[in-house]
Amino acid sequence: MKRDASHGAGRDVRTVRITDVARAAGVSPSTVSKALNGSGSLREATRERVRAAAEQLGFVSDAGARALSTRRTFIVGLLSTDNVGRFSLPVMLGAENALSVGEISTLVATARRGSVQEQHHLRTLVARRVDGIIVTGKATDPREPIAVPVPVVYALAPSTDPDDMSVVPDDAAGMRLVVDHLRTLGHRRVAHVGGRPEHRTSQVRLASLRASLAEAGMELVGEPLLGEWSEPWGRQAVDLLLRRGGDAAERPPMTAVVCASDQLARAVGDRLRERGVRVPHEVAVTGYDNWQVMWEASRPPLTTVDMDLERLGRRAAERLLAAITAEPDGGFADSGTELVPPRLVVRGSSMADD
Amino acid sequence: MKRDASHGAGRDVRTVRITDVARAAGVSPSTVSKALNGSGSLREATRERVRAAAEQLGFVSDAGARALSTRRTFIVGLLSTDNVGRFSLPVMLGAENALSVGEISTLVATARRGSVQEQHHLRTLVARRVDGIIVTGKATDPREPIAVPVPVVYALAPSTDPDDMSVVPDDAAGMRLVVDHLRTLGHRRVAHVGGRPEHRTSQVRLASLRASLAEAGMELVGEPLLGEWSEPWGRQAVDLLLRRGGDAAERPPMTAVVCASDQLARAVGDRLRERGVRVPHEVAVTGYDNWQVMWEASRPPLTTVDMDLERLGRRAAERLLAAITAEPDGGFADSGTELVPPRLVVRGSSMADD
Repeated sequence: MKRDASHGAGRDVRTVRITDVARAAGVSPSTVSKALNGSGSLREATRERVRAAAEQLGFVSDAGARALSTRRTFIVGLLSTDNVGRFSLPVMLGAENALSVGEISTLVATARRGSVQEQHHLRTLVARRVDGIIVTGKATDPREPIAVPVPVVYALAPSTDPDDMSVVPDDAAGMRLVVDHLRTLGHRRVAHVGGRPEHRTSQVRLASLRASLAEAGMELVGEPLLGEWSEPWGRQAVDLLLRRGGDAAERPPMTAVVCASDQLARAVGDRLRERGVRVPHEVAVTGYDNWQVMWEASRPPLTTVDMDLERLGRRAAERLLAAITAEPDGGFADSGTELVPPRLVVRGSSMADD
Repeated sequence: MKRDASHGAGRDVRTVRITDVARAAGVSPSTVSKALNGSGSLREATRERVRAAAEQLGFVSDAGARALSTRRTFIVGLLSTDNVGRFSLPVMLGAENALSVGEISTLVATARRGSVQEQHHLRTLVARRVDGIIVTGKATDPREPIAVPVPVVYALAPSTDPDDMSVVPDDAAGMRLVVDHLRTLGHRRVAHVGGRPEHRTSQVRLASLRASLAEAGMELVGEPLLGEWSEPWGRQAVDLLLRRGGDAAERPPMTAVVCASDQLARAVGDRLRERGVRVPHEVAVTGYDNWQVMWEASRPPLTTVDMDLERLGRRAAERLLAAITAEPDGGFADSGTELVPPRLVVRGSSMADD
């Protein structure tokens, strides 16, 4: 780890001065200043020689940092998929708001992931000399990294390279909140209805559900039912669950159904009611997303998990700005995946108010 | 109306030449060229004098047009409201796609309509020297125009100034399509369930419904039921409609319910089914929006109107580009409100397939 020269009072840290760079490059200190600022009229060969000497010696000057800052355009690119995304939209809004507070403008570019159009957009963003790029996807499935000469942060959909900067919702924590809530209410037998099994979201939520139930000494009733992200599938899944219970006159085999989305939870609640099962008195239902259109229309309204996607967007913007303003020789301030904690929203589908 | 000089073969049109401007400004023709191109090193006073002379004489040169074009940044601003909008998102995507095809980048800025933040965003966009601005709202309620020195197009939410360029969905045409469809199917008695009565959308759709029904010799059953844009209101409205019918054993007073949104139509369908009314056999239901989440979950899926909002966004971008590239003295190529035609999508809620 590189020691910070500004704190380097100790003898072992040698502070590199502008005169050291000048001597190494065989030029005057003012030439060093000009070369690193990109100002003045120097031959490119001289400029290069100074830069090489500065880099070799590990020279960092306030002037250099300022020069770097003046070379910024204060424009950030926002690359998004062209699928209309109710998940990516709040992320984009959160990022744009955080950036605009910092007087930074946002160039948007939407294209199908990995498409020729996406490559075209990236070239345009780089040609416009954006200071950095935020990449969002429509879901949390990892995507291949983009190759650009500026800092990049992946929001919602992480990069497949774990060393890249990614900001994603903490779905494992979300499922732990749900299980903890149900455990507190006394539930012991829980069924699971989820969406497409190949989606990262499905896998992370199910794995966390299993682990959390096991830890709490609760039972996952039967096989988890993964299918589609749609209401017809949610209704179908209820029929499958009640069939499992055997005789229709018997009580349902579970006291709660944990769903991987509000859309599914809404349909599960509808179908349970149609089959004569009272929610939440006989079976509690929980969703995921805190999507108003769905939780509000459900009878009763849904207990669910809010991923706080606007905050996720803000965090992505904050990390990008940190990387942009990082010292030129210090690499990026941080890397790796950051998890944004969710919160549980309790409503009538799990707790009756009568 | 100003005659176009390029067609001005007639004696009455005096073509202003660069030498005329040079004489009026007391400089050489090459100085005029430099001054209008923004090129060369001239004193600002000279440049100003030439510009004033050119403007006074109504001088338009090819060089001037080119200069104007080279002064473009090929960046367009997209000002949107900060409400997460399932209507404004496709508009924004359509606009961004159309602009990117033209190698134009899009700067986004979101803020509450008329807020201090919106003013700040507008100043930033102008300071970035955008070529023009597209303003979108979250619904079709008119908004006060913005004051900027570049061309502006209002998309979805029109400007309150009818001379501004606005592109909005043709909701009156949408309701005509619905009524025509129901008339063809033999319906004569139609009820209406809508959202918030103060919204422009509610008013335009209801007025068109009334006019279309009258023209078709069909009856609007009772007062139209306007309330909220929510499923609970849609369900409530059905209870009100069936109460109107008097005795519960009687048939419903209408053979079709025309709803002002898919969300309402979905709830109306659900409640009719719960009350034992078969859709579409006893009562047909139509929606508005072609919102997949809603039409797909409905039983049966919804007949509805698609406003083609991506096309609306594209049209806004096309009109903005036309205004940006219009001749400097010609004003904007066109002004006024453009209506984007909708299309009817027929599904099971109005036509049974058995």
